[in-house]
Amino acid sequence: MKLHTTSSSPNGRRVAIFLAEKGVEIPLVEVDLRGGENLGESFRARNPFGRVPVLELDDGTCIAESVAISRYIECLYPRPALFGTTAHSQATIEMWNRRAELNLMMPVAHAFRNLTGIFKDREAVVPEWGRVSEEVAAATLPLFDAQLAKTEYLAGAHFSVADITLAITIDFARATKRNLPFDLPNVSRWFDSVSSRPSFAR
Amino acid sequence: MKLHTTSSSPNGRRVAIFLAEKGVEIPLVEVDLRGGENLGESFRARNPFGRVPVLELDDGTCIAESVAISRYIECLYPRPALFGTTAHSQATIEMWNRRAELNLMMPVAHAFRNLTGIFKDREAVVPEWGRVSEEVAAATLPLFDAQLAKTEYLAGAHFSVADITLAITIDFARATKRNLPFDLPNVSRWFDSVSSRPSFAR
Repeated sequence: MKLHTTSSSPNGRRVAIFLAEKGVEIPLVEVDLRGGENLGESFRARNPFGRVPVLELDDGTCIAESVAISRYIECLYPRPALFGTTAHSQATIEMWNRRAELNLMMPVAHAFRNLTGIFKDREAVVPEWGRVSEEVAAATLPLFDAQLAKTEYLAGAHFSVADITLAITIDFARATKRNLPFDLPNVSRWFDSVSSRPSFAR
Repeated sequence: MKLHTTSSSPNGRRVAIFLAEKGVEIPLVEVDLRGGENLGESFRARNPFGRVPVLELDDGTCIAESVAISRYIECLYPRPALFGTTAHSQATIEMWNRRAELNLMMPVAHAFRNLTGIFKDREAVVPEWGRVSEEVAAATLPLFDAQLAKTEYLAGAHFSVADITLAITIDFARATKRNLPFDLPNVSRWFDSVSSRPSFAR
């Protein structure tokens, strides 16, 4: 296997942290996202959708989408389980991973791309949508704080893939100076704990 | 169990079709999405994020997010497998389900909501983002057509949850008259086949 990735991108980091939590090492091929290498013919042969990361298997099969890659790794290396084991834990983790992705990571990404215009050479940019997205993200973070008032980790008593998604999103939002209420007490307590795991040093 | 849902919404339909494919019947509680019932206190006690559908278990646990609900049902009723069984099929189905959701369903939904302003009583509307999203969706559909030139179903030789997601998205985009190239040959062949399944009559 080898992993085509942009290590510094949020999705590249998600998979890198997932692999580190599993104790799995896979050779990396760095993709120059800023330079648009992901949109070139060679990369699109592996992923026509032009997104990183992509896991290339030894038989040539290419698995794109961070969560699909993580799930493949979970199948090969089931312990520690990061997607849950029972019906209840699998569904709860899927729910929280999706809430973190769809209701926070997405608006944060839309805010970043539409307010900075970082990819304006390759996509239409709508600053007003960036502002709306930033407000949506800011209004949504307290819902995660309310959950983290009740549970140690996002999906319950155990660390899971949902924690990786939320932590990466908050880290990215902080680094790009998005206007979010980062000082919420439970989110702060949880973020300090999760981001100090050895896997996050990657 | 009972399912709080808006049967006519795209996500309500996804879960209804999934249940029908499994041959599972669950009592339904209809939620008035247009009237904003999903944003009221009673619904938010079940899902603070205010989204339908929500599966309420007998112990009171509430599972939100269509894919999390579907995965819970898959754990309880493993056959026919709609999320795959091997590492390879699970990852491939996850990848295509996510591509259908993130790269097509999302821009179609953004186009619909921002161009029609259907929820302008409760969310900021940016028509320019609606136009950009519709262009993104139109440019993405051919990538699904290219895949369906090679495989019978979206993620390979077998019907899966990824087919439900893509078919619901195309059906919704058609019904709301989005400007997408619906007549692509492989997408058309596949859509006719999938949408004629008994589960889609729901």
